Amino acid sequence: MPEFRRDPLLNRWVIVARERGERPSGLQPESANGHPYDPAQDPFAPGNERYTPGEVYSLRPEGGAANGPGWQVRVVPNRYPALRIEGDLDPRGYGIYDRMNGVGAHEVVVETPLAPLSLADMPALEIGYVLQAWRQRIEDLYRDRRLAHVLVFKNHGAAAGATQMHSHSQIVATPMIPLRLREELTACHEHWRQKRRSLFMDILDEELRMGERLVYENAHFVAFCPFACYSPFELMLLPRRPSADYRRCSPEELADLADALRVCLLKWRGALGDCAWNLMLHTAPNEQSLAGVSEDFPLLEAYFQWHIEMFPRLTTTAGFEWGTGMHINPVPPEEAAAALRAIEVGPA
Amino acid sequence: MPEFRRDPLLNRWVIVARERGERPSGLQPESANGHPYDPAQDPFAPGNERYTPGEVYSLRPEGGAANGPGWQVRVVPNRYPALRIEGDLDPRGYGIYDRMNGVGAHEVVVETPLAPLSLADMPALEIGYVLQAWRQRIEDLYRDRRLAHVLVFKNHGAAAGATQMHSHSQIVATPMIPLRLREELTACHEHWRQKRRSLFMDILDEELRMGERLVYENAHFVAFCPFACYSPFELMLLPRRPSADYRRCSPEELADLADALRVCLLKWRGALGDCAWNLMLHTAPNEQSLAGVSEDFPLLEAYFQWHIEMFPRLTTTAGFEWGTGMHINPVPPEEAAAALRAIEVGPA
Repeated sequence: MPEFRRDPLLNRWVIVARERGERPSGLQPESANGHPYDPAQDPFAPGNERYTPGEVYSLRPEGGAANGPGWQVRVVPNRYPALRIEGDLDPRGYGIYDRMNGVGAHEVVVETPLAPLSLADMPALEIGYVLQAWRQRIEDLYRDRRLAHVLVFKNHGAAAGATQMHSHSQIVATPMIPLRLREELTACHEHWRQKRRSLFMDILDEELRMGERLVYENAHFVAFCPFACYSPFELMLLPRRPSADYRRCSPEELADLADALRVCLLKWRGALGDCAWNLMLHTAPNEQSLAGVSEDFPLLEAYFQWHIEMFPRLTTTAGFEWGTGMHINPVPPEEAAAALRAIEVGPA
Repeated sequence: MPEFRRDPLLNRWVIVARERGERPSGLQPESANGHPYDPAQDPFAPGNERYTPGEVYSLRPEGGAANGPGWQVRVVPNRYPALRIEGDLDPRGYGIYDRMNGVGAHEVVVETPLAPLSLADMPALEIGYVLQAWRQRIEDLYRDRRLAHVLVFKNHGAAAGATQMHSHSQIVATPMIPLRLREELTACHEHWRQKRRSLFMDILDEELRMGERLVYENAHFVAFCPFACYSPFELMLLPRRPSADYRRCSPEELADLADALRVCLLKWRGALGDCAWNLMLHTAPNEQSLAGVSEDFPLLEAYFQWHIEMFPRLTTTAGFEWGTGMHINPVPPEEAAAALRAIEVGPA
C-alpha cells in the first residue's frame, strides 16, 4: 500500500510508493559522466587558470602565485553567472509585477587539481580542504550586507546538472532568503515558539531513538535517510552540536564532516554504482544583511541548524511533481538506509 | 544583467539570466522519444486492451464493447499506481512524524488509438475528445468525498518522465489539496480579500494590455509566457471567462481550448523541434470532499481560475534549484513569446 508521509521541516506530504519502483524503467541510476574527459579542454585543470575569471580563494600548501598552478582548492567566479556582484538591487514595479536587478554572487569551487577525480575518491583530508573553502567563502560573502544568504551546492554528473566533469562545487549568494530556506526557518521558528525546542534536534533525537533510517555516525555527525524524503537514497547530514551557522564549525567538526561525507558517497557508490547526485548545504542567513533577517527570524541561533542534504538522481521530476509540489519516492527510506548500512567502507 | 522577477501566484522569485543560456550545453532540447516504437509491446495499442486494468471511461464513436478495440479515447487505472482507490486514509502519528495510507486514484488517458501520434499531430477535434475525457473523469472522481483534488497532467517524451511512447495523459486524485495548488489558492484568496478582484483576471488584463508576452488568442482563451516563469518557453493557457472549475467548460470553450493547445504545441515544435514537455491542468479542489476545502478557501469561485501550465524540458533542475526553490530561466519570456508568435501554424 502506498503511504503519505509528512515532512515536518517543509510542511509537505510525500508519497512513498514501492509500487512505482517496479515499473520497467522506474529506477535507473543516470551515469555521472556524459562525455569523455579531455584535459586540454578542462578550464579547471592546473595550467589552464587563464580560462577562468581571477581566483577569489585558493589553498596553496606549497605556495605559488595566484592564478597559476600549485593549488589544492581554487575558487573563481562562475564564467556564466546566474547573478552578478556589481550594482544595486533597484527594486521596482512593472505593471502589477515586481522586478529587481540580479545582484548576488556565483562562484565555482574547484575541489582538486587531479581531474577527473570524484569527491568520493579523495582522502578525507582533501575533502576537508574543500569544506574549509566553503566556510571561508561564506565568511567573506557575508561581509557584503547586500547578501542575505549563501547556498553551497554540488552537481555531480551531467544528469545532476554538471556541465564540467572536473570535480567542483558552486556557491550562490542571493539578496533574499531563498524560498526553501525560508520554509525551513519558518517551521523551526514556529516549533520553537510552541515548544522552546529545536525541530532539527527533535528529528535527530527521534532518528537516533528509532534507528531504522540511520546510515552512519561519527563523533560529531549523524547521517540518515529522512522520514519523508523526496528521493530514493536521499541523505541528511546533521551535526550533533546545535549550531545554526556553518561558519562556526570547529576544525574537529570539519574533519568529521569530511569523514561522514566520504563514507556516505562510497556507500552510495556501493549500492547504486557511479550515479549522478546533488548536494546542498543549508546554513543560517546573514543576520548583518539589509534583508531584515532578524526581523523575520529573531534568535535563529536557538532553533535553526545548519545541515547538508544530498540525493542521487534516480527518479525523473514529471508533470505530477511540477503540478502538485508533491513527490513520489519508490524506495521507503528504511529500506534505503538498511541497504546503505550494509555497504562496508574502508578507511580514508 | 540578470534580473529577479516575482511570481505573484506562487509568491516566489525567479532569476531571469540570459547569460546562462550562453553556456556550452546550456539549452538543448531533449528529444521526446528515447526508444524505437514497437506496436506489439504497446499496452495502449488497440487489440492490446488486456494489458491494462479494465477501463473506467471510453469514447467509442462507432460503439463496441468495453476493453476491446473501437475506442477513440480510453481511460484505465495506472498499472503502477502512486495511490490506490481502496481503503481509508487512517491518519496516525509515528514518533514525532505523521503518516497515512496512500488513498487516491491514478489513471491513464490513452489519447488516440493511433500510436505513435503526438498530441500536436492530432486534429483539434480529436484533441477535444481528450479534453472531454479529462472533464468526465474529474466529474466522476469528485463524487468520491475522500478525494480533495484531481490533477490532470501529461508527460511527453522520456526526458519529461514518460515511460510509454503512445500518447497519453494522467490523472491523479489526492485526499488533500496539493501544496502547489494550495499556494495558488492562498495567493488568490489574499488578493481577493484585499482587493475583491481575481488575481488571475488581473494577470490576464495585464498580459493583454502589455502584449509583449502574448503567444496566441482565440475567442475563449489566451496563451502567454508568464512574467516570472521557471522555464524557457513556458506557457500559461487562461480562459477569458472567470471560472474556478474546469468541469463547467462549455462545448465551445473545450473546442477553443483544443485549438489553442494544438497551436501552442505546433509553435513549440516550430521553435524548438520535437522536445520533451510537461502539461498540468489546475482546477478547483472538490468542495464536497471531507478535506474542508470551503473552510480554508471559502467562495473560491470568486477568486480562483482554472488554467493550464505547460513547459518544454530545456533546462536541468540541479543543486541550486533544489537547495533554494528558486529557478534560473535563461530565456526572458518576452523573447520566447516573440519567437513563438513568429511561428505560423496552419488550420487543424
